[in-house]
Amino acid sequence: MNHIKEIHAADFVAVVQSGVSTQKLQEAVEKRGLFYPPDPASRADNFIGGNVATNAGGPRCLKYGVTRDYVLGLEVVLADGAILHVGGRTHKNKTGFDLTRLFVGSEGLLGVVTEVTLKLIPLPPFRATLAAGFDSMKSAVCALQKILAGGFIPSALELADAFTLAAAAKHTGNNRLGICRAYLIVELDGQRKSIHSELPAVERVIRRHKPLFVERGCGNDECEKIWQIRREFSDALRATGLMKLNEDIVVPRGKLEELFKFTAKLQKKHNLPIACFGHAGDGNIHTNVMVDFNQPRARQRADAALDELFRQVLAWGGAITGEHGIGLAKKRWWPLAVSKKVRKLHSTIKTALDPKGILNPGKFV
Amino acid sequence: MNHIKEIHAADFVAVVQSGVSTQKLQEAVEKRGLFYPPDPASRADNFIGGNVATNAGGPRCLKYGVTRDYVLGLEVVLADGAILHVGGRTHKNKTGFDLTRLFVGSEGLLGVVTEVTLKLIPLPPFRATLAAGFDSMKSAVCALQKILAGGFIPSALELADAFTLAAAAKHTGNNRLGICRAYLIVELDGQRKSIHSELPAVERVIRRHKPLFVERGCGNDECEKIWQIRREFSDALRATGLMKLNEDIVVPRGKLEELFKFTAKLQKKHNLPIACFGHAGDGNIHTNVMVDFNQPRARQRADAALDELFRQVLAWGGAITGEHGIGLAKKRWWPLAVSKKVRKLHSTIKTALDPKGILNPGKFV
Repeated sequence: MNHIKEIHAADFVAVVQSGVSTQKLQEAVEKRGLFYPPDPASRADNFIGGNVATNAGGPRCLKYGVTRDYVLGLEVVLADGAILHVGGRTHKNKTGFDLTRLFVGSEGLLGVVTEVTLKLIPLPPFRATLAAGFDSMKSAVCALQKILAGGFIPSALELADAFTLAAAAKHTGNNRLGICRAYLIVELDGQRKSIHSELPAVERVIRRHKPLFVERGCGNDECEKIWQIRREFSDALRATGLMKLNEDIVVPRGKLEELFKFTAKLQKKHNLPIACFGHAGDGNIHTNVMVDFNQPRARQRADAALDELFRQVLAWGGAITGEHGIGLAKKRWWPLAVSKKVRKLHSTIKTALDPKGILNPGKFV
Repeated sequence: MNHIKEIHAADFVAVVQSGVSTQKLQEAVEKRGLFYPPDPASRADNFIGGNVATNAGGPRCLKYGVTRDYVLGLEVVLADGAILHVGGRTHKNKTGFDLTRLFVGSEGLLGVVTEVTLKLIPLPPFRATLAAGFDSMKSAVCALQKILAGGFIPSALELADAFTLAAAAKHTGNNRLGICRAYLIVELDGQRKSIHSELPAVERVIRRHKPLFVERGCGNDECEKIWQIRREFSDALRATGLMKLNEDIVVPRGKLEELFKFTAKLQKKHNLPIACFGHAGDGNIHTNVMVDFNQPRARQRADAALDELFRQVLAWGGAITGEHGIGLAKKRWWPLAVSKKVRKLHSTIKTALDPKGILNPGKFV
């Protein structure tokens, strides 16, 4: 189940079994000058099958889209044991209903994915990264919005808040992070000459918002050094000794600043740190409620904070999950997130495909 | 039903009723520095609702994806009269099954779409177009493949064959087209400085394949002049006086040259011109079987040619439709295009959502 069956450079297609790790696939296709963009942070430890089940994202999804956008075809075992092949290997396909994408993100509730045909694209020849510290989240968000307004679509636009940065400074010894209230990472990719002219243009936009510092990385090695810091955020938060309840809410992009203001209030009200970082370009922020379960009523306070957060996100037209799914962890908020009619349609489809309810039972549907 | 309800620049979202024309939406968002990429050729005469029903494409889909990739949320009237809201207005959303994309491309068989929430992206500040004539399709296809292999993702990569070009030369008076056996259009968009450096790089790739001529267009006005020729192709074919049976097959990208060879053979065998042009970058070629219905057994010969074409496309791992759908016209080939199990799953879903079969009856399911 962990075999890359085919990488076809002219068709721009890979066929992989569902147990192939995302990183293994990416490394294999990049050797051939090809690119599989979706990049969940845990790409070394997760698998294409799981990526399909959750419609996994990652930083690069801002420019390149999520797992869904790369699935051309699937082999799926249905509840009755039938082996189904949906989609195909063409980059466009309008043959019937979009069954492929009905299975993508269905969290194992409609079938078991055993093989995936993926779209590949040409590997961008060059990349460059900017990382900037700010003394306010407002400035960082404003810089982010001005970059997009300038017609740039970076391959990543990530933000981190003060709590995350303090933890990262302590964990990594990078003291500069500790003085910031916000940290913005912008990555550009494409042709080398283009990136060399776009990088200073984006840096000028950032500098207009008075950053405390700006770091530049050109080419893979320098970029990876900056991303190494970003990848430490989760470990740094865990190293605080607090339990990290990692949510993945999404707000409409224009609500980013309000989201950070709201979580700041929420922290005070419930006396719990909330560490926010993530894919700000998509409005998709990992909001980590940090809990010390030795403290009185810790679970209740965390739940109350999450409940308030989710209600506010939904009131803004946001979503309670951008890349993790509902599963068990968010089952409680499922009736809040979607209408009764939408839940009914989920049941209709689930019952039609899995009448005995044997696939991943007990989850949100 | 033809009202643009909202264009939100900070959220990068538009909310439109299904009767809004694609061109009207595009012009409205572009005034605000925003971009809605899907661009079916008939964008002045078609509507967002129809685009959603067929998951419409167009030249720019190579870089930017199809209609599906821009639909964030839908208002749908179900068969039982219930008004359902699926999805939302965030650029990422993993709340439950992907019901939004179950309705996209469902050709009106599962519900009636009345309102659509669309993702917008930043408008690229600049565009440039290259058009090159070749004395063989092989050279044109090879140039196309080398552009992609160079890590370029053009916003369009279109090809046209000799029959199409001869008709276009006659129809438009552009005699240069008539001497070519193939014509390649490449469009690049992005930051002005980047495009100014990428354009000559792409032109160098093209010139290595010995084009008869290369035309350059920089900026909207010059690009539109080149695209005006491309947009005349359908009218030029109709002006031949022959009936144009427009198919929209897709082949895996590596099979492009074989496809053109195959249609050349097919023309001779069935004594019918087949005019091919379209979105070659996606492998999605409009294969127009040109029929004179005054000739003996014209219908039978056309049907036989189509049947052979579709069988060969499927044998290559291709699809019989990339952007038009099955509907009535391809209903005959539906059982050939997908397995019995896939057809059964279509029926299961159709029955679950529309048990009385009142939505768009008589179509392929």
